[in-house]
Amino acid sequence: MQIDELDTPSLTADLDAVERNIARVQHYCDDHGISLRPHVKTHKLPELARMQVEAGARGITCQKLGEVEIFADAGFDDILISFPIIGESKIERLRRLAERVRVCVAVDSDEGADALDGIDVDVLIECDTGFGRTGVQSPEEAARLAGTVERFRGLMTYPTPAGTSEWLQRVLDLVGEVDCISVGGTPTASSVHELGIATELRVGTYVYGDRACMANGSVPLEDCALRVLATVVSTPTRERAIVDAGSKALTSDLAEATTGYGFLLEHPEAQVYKLNEEHGHVDVSRCERPPRIGDRVSIVPNHACGAVNMYDEIVLHRGGEIVETLPIRARGRVR
Amino acid sequence: MQIDELDTPSLTADLDAVERNIARVQHYCDDHGISLRPHVKTHKLPELARMQVEAGARGITCQKLGEVEIFADAGFDDILISFPIIGESKIERLRRLAERVRVCVAVDSDEGADALDGIDVDVLIECDTGFGRTGVQSPEEAARLAGTVERFRGLMTYPTPAGTSEWLQRVLDLVGEVDCISVGGTPTASSVHELGIATELRVGTYVYGDRACMANGSVPLEDCALRVLATVVSTPTRERAIVDAGSKALTSDLAEATTGYGFLLEHPEAQVYKLNEEHGHVDVSRCERPPRIGDRVSIVPNHACGAVNMYDEIVLHRGGEIVETLPIRARGRVR
Repeated sequence: MQIDELDTPSLTADLDAVERNIARVQHYCDDHGISLRPHVKTHKLPELARMQVEAGARGITCQKLGEVEIFADAGFDDILISFPIIGESKIERLRRLAERVRVCVAVDSDEGADALDGIDVDVLIECDTGFGRTGVQSPEEAARLAGTVERFRGLMTYPTPAGTSEWLQRVLDLVGEVDCISVGGTPTASSVHELGIATELRVGTYVYGDRACMANGSVPLEDCALRVLATVVSTPTRERAIVDAGSKALTSDLAEATTGYGFLLEHPEAQVYKLNEEHGHVDVSRCERPPRIGDRVSIVPNHACGAVNMYDEIVLHRGGEIVETLPIRARGRVR
Repeated sequence: MQIDELDTPSLTADLDAVERNIARVQHYCDDHGISLRPHVKTHKLPELARMQVEAGARGITCQKLGEVEIFADAGFDDILISFPIIGESKIERLRRLAERVRVCVAVDSDEGADALDGIDVDVLIECDTGFGRTGVQSPEEAARLAGTVERFRGLMTYPTPAGTSEWLQRVLDLVGEVDCISVGGTPTASSVHELGIATELRVGTYVYGDRACMANGSVPLEDCALRVLATVVSTPTRERAIVDAGSKALTSDLAEATTGYGFLLEHPEAQVYKLNEEHGHVDVSRCERPPRIGDRVSIVPNHACGAVNMYDEIVLHRGGEIVETLPIRARGRVR
């Protein structure tokens, strides 16, 4: 069966492109002696994580304990949680997970560090090297916090703005060598060796690519594996087509350095200028042959991780021929 | 058990507020002789739709066939689909549904009308009275299309900008009286009687309310039933707190007439100024007592329909005491 026969909207991924993306980043990491630890928040599929590990990835990265539980059940046994674990019930779940798989957690506070007492986990100190999200605010604070945890293994940051190397090196000057310096982000995934300090790369989006990756140059269109297939359901004017993929099929996530909500493969001149929940508003005024009612379109979403999270299943194909349909096992594991 | 004991993020709804919202809009419709046909895309719960129908709603509105299938299975037998049904497989599903429940569909094109030949459904002609989405573009076109369908029952529009009454009246001048003039939208839900022409109101968001409703005045904070419960997981600076609810818990949906991504009940001075997938960035600089790591917060999301769509279940409570946890049955029914 061909993906053209699927009802819409449907989420599809081109396995050939997925394999190219996995191989490209793995080769890059191998060439530079950097461990790859893919972030599974993007695909939420044990099957793709298996491909990543078989290609050479060291382990996986999860963002939520709910993801860790799914992937541990699926046999993954080396998992980094790159998100602060706070609260009694989460600490208890972490304790149970740590009894059966190797877990490393990111910590950026005394509260987070203290809660790990007696739990069998490694710790990376999360450092805010400029992004302004989580992470300790100074190398001195990183060194101090590192001294309070039992199994300090290294440092973690995301992303890697200018000054990151110097920031992290200052911590090393204070604490000495560490096992792991973990950095993240698909946009800079092919240049982290230039930092001269990273030992591990965490990336998620690279496996599928998306419109943001096209805009920032990290994944070219030909390697963007993910599509939301949609149908034109209304053409009220010459300028406007409405497709059956709105914010519940594409998300309202924007992409830096571009406007609109997705790239229409069959109509590159078109602009998805607005979304309602189930309606995608497409400006087709610049299309010489605008799409007609019933026409199918293939949309590269702005943000792969967000789009995947809207679906219960994904259809994997090669060249349009369906290979298999997989349940997105870790979708909805919000906690 | 109290909702305060739930792990986070969790989606909760206050049943007392839900009941007030259902009663308020039903009374308004009853007072003005307007039929109420609630849109179930907001809650996607047969249980709440049952409450709406028992309060006096005439039937329900769905946006996707997948929703219709869930609600037909749950016993609802009078369903309007306010979205164009286009494509062979969808027409076939519509045919099967029409054999077991009463279905009315919106049509705005010859393609949509022709496909209904021989199917047991009523038809509303969708009119674009100014929103610029789906719908025929003129009263004359509405009248022409009405003449091509077998079971023309009336007109449908969303929302109801100035000029809507005159637009719709012009169609009536051409086609004569109709059974149903269906209008939609929570923001104007308490003034559609002023149109003087509407016989039916379609509204969804009113049942929960959200931050957009607070901003446009349609649902006050005390009647906003929906909360995303979250935990502060990091306080890197005095100005910034990070909560464990990001775009996968709240959506990136914006709300008109306000900025940010949600309203923090415990910290009204705080601003959720940015979301990553699992991180909510909160500016707490104006909070006299900023939240601390481990503190719980209750967030009124920008957009109820979008937020609900992120969760597999919702916890219903009264005054914080949990009544029951329901699977969000029609979530993920994207087609």
